[in-house]
Amino acid sequence: MASSMSAERPTLEDVAAYAGVSRSTASRALNEESYVSPRAREAVLAAARDLGYSPNQAARSLVTKRTGAVALILSEPESKVLNDPYFLMVMREAFRALADGGAQMLVMFVDNRDDIPRTTRFLEGGHVDGALVFAPHAGDPLPTALKLLRVPVVFGGRPGTASRGLYTVDYDNVGGAHLAATHLIQRHRRNIVTVCGPQDHPAAQDRLLGWQKALAEHGMPIDDRAESGDFTQTGGEAAMTRLLERHPDLDAVFAASDPMAAGVLQALRAHGLRVPDDVAVVGFDDNPSIVHTLKPPLTSVHQEPAAQVRHMITILQCLIAGDAPTPKRQVLPVSLAIRDST
Amino acid sequence: MASSMSAERPTLEDVAAYAGVSRSTASRALNEESYVSPRAREAVLAAARDLGYSPNQAARSLVTKRTGAVALILSEPESKVLNDPYFLMVMREAFRALADGGAQMLVMFVDNRDDIPRTTRFLEGGHVDGALVFAPHAGDPLPTALKLLRVPVVFGGRPGTASRGLYTVDYDNVGGAHLAATHLIQRHRRNIVTVCGPQDHPAAQDRLLGWQKALAEHGMPIDDRAESGDFTQTGGEAAMTRLLERHPDLDAVFAASDPMAAGVLQALRAHGLRVPDDVAVVGFDDNPSIVHTLKPPLTSVHQEPAAQVRHMITILQCLIAGDAPTPKRQVLPVSLAIRDST
Repeated sequence: MASSMSAERPTLEDVAAYAGVSRSTASRALNEESYVSPRAREAVLAAARDLGYSPNQAARSLVTKRTGAVALILSEPESKVLNDPYFLMVMREAFRALADGGAQMLVMFVDNRDDIPRTTRFLEGGHVDGALVFAPHAGDPLPTALKLLRVPVVFGGRPGTASRGLYTVDYDNVGGAHLAATHLIQRHRRNIVTVCGPQDHPAAQDRLLGWQKALAEHGMPIDDRAESGDFTQTGGEAAMTRLLERHPDLDAVFAASDPMAAGVLQALRAHGLRVPDDVAVVGFDDNPSIVHTLKPPLTSVHQEPAAQVRHMITILQCLIAGDAPTPKRQVLPVSLAIRDST
Repeated sequence: MASSMSAERPTLEDVAAYAGVSRSTASRALNEESYVSPRAREAVLAAARDLGYSPNQAARSLVTKRTGAVALILSEPESKVLNDPYFLMVMREAFRALADGGAQMLVMFVDNRDDIPRTTRFLEGGHVDGALVFAPHAGDPLPTALKLLRVPVVFGGRPGTASRGLYTVDYDNVGGAHLAATHLIQRHRRNIVTVCGPQDHPAAQDRLLGWQKALAEHGMPIDDRAESGDFTQTGGEAAMTRLLERHPDLDAVFAASDPMAAGVLQALRAHGLRVPDDVAVVGFDDNPSIVHTLKPPLTSVHQEPAAQVRHMITILQCLIAGDAPTPKRQVLPVSLAIRDST
């Protein structure tokens, strides 16, 4: 019943008329072909955005060639991304999962906001079928910029900005932190602190919240018992040192990442405190290259980067095929791997 | 004076006639546009290869849009590439240098030969302006596969196969190893062994050769004094253990990479040997995240991944612009950073 001229669903003709170009030019511009002037291309793309034009996916796939490539975009200061064991695991798992499905992974780093126009230009250029994106920091303009593109995008973890309406595959960070703190309480610890992550980071916020909830449920003190360790080992060590000054009688620590837990263990050792006899320690990530090498081996909240990445790829494949899977926000369960540090 | 029909330089018309398609179809196929059947596209690409057709670069750049993207291709088993501090530094430096020049870096991993057809298909698809490639292993079919493409390629280090005629930016591995061994001899060491890298790897071959040359120049024994440590810390530890069994009176070790030197120090400590009092140790790479953290700090052959990567990018930019810089093989100098391990 819907007319091709209906206001609800703009057509290619509408876009061409709005941009003041021929239908053929509009089609060529939208399909990223040559022989379109930059000015005409820009006018057509602007018209498509203004009108909310979204070409029929099934019909498009007949004329637009798929590239077989998927971008993995890591939006994190360059100095950190390649030192973070979590991102290294994500790269490895995404490469394997995409290669198994015959897709070519392209890793793209976004170090700061100057990198964003170049990145979106490439994504708009028809070079990839979709993108897997990790952009955890509040204030990062990337998620908003990606919303304007016609490229399917799935986020790993809740992005730091503009998360409404986006496809995300997150872990149950609140639940995991709650598990960790409850475990410490069950181990009869009564003076529990936390080395939290940077609070411009949704996962760090959620982990702090889960720790607070568990302590509140048992009527235990929360105030003045959280210090940020910036998700790094040196940051974790410094935060623990500050907490020991304020609470010399503390008997347990929840560190919101494994690298920070490694720094916590260093600080405790430097203060002559034994783990777990004097102080029990729980980490978060259960990163196999960290938890087993620490002394003692670390109790940690277990999450599966492989599961997260494969989930993201499944959703992305649906989007590329023109489907719209629900719910848009998916949350994967976590568990607690108990070792000698508690 | 050259006719457009001359046999030396096939034209677009020649390619079209050979492939049995129209000139316009041949042009569209070579420029990766739509509306060309897969069969016609294949025929045209095959014809272009058979005839050695190479479109005039300057003319091409007028009609073919640049993508502004450069691939960084790391051909190394996936299990190793993200654990190797050298590749992490290369990724970081290449990202920075390309971003500074306004180019988008796309990291592509090649884990094994099954990944190659997908990788070359993407590169042939007109999605990148060129590629920086690290493919150090003998028998790797990637360098040969890349030779067939029309995409400019510059190699970091001599590739393990098909290195003739390729653009490469290498370090002076022979000279660096020679420096290291000569330094040990000048330190009055007389019983020098080496933990070498995997011998399917040109850099590892060169470093072994440089060590041998220095020892031979001083009439010192070489036989039975090299063990491969596979460029890893655990491999270096195992190789050192084997060398200590054969040469319990050794007084110096040249390890052909810093991670292997870290393993060498572990093995020496386990045998109760002091460094440098009992045994002097030299590494190779001068990786800042390794040499300073070792005890004692490591003497190491200094190379600059940043310089190598920027050199590669300069050459690639020339190739993209249609120039042919000479010489094709460039070798960067190295030096020796002397610390407490010698």
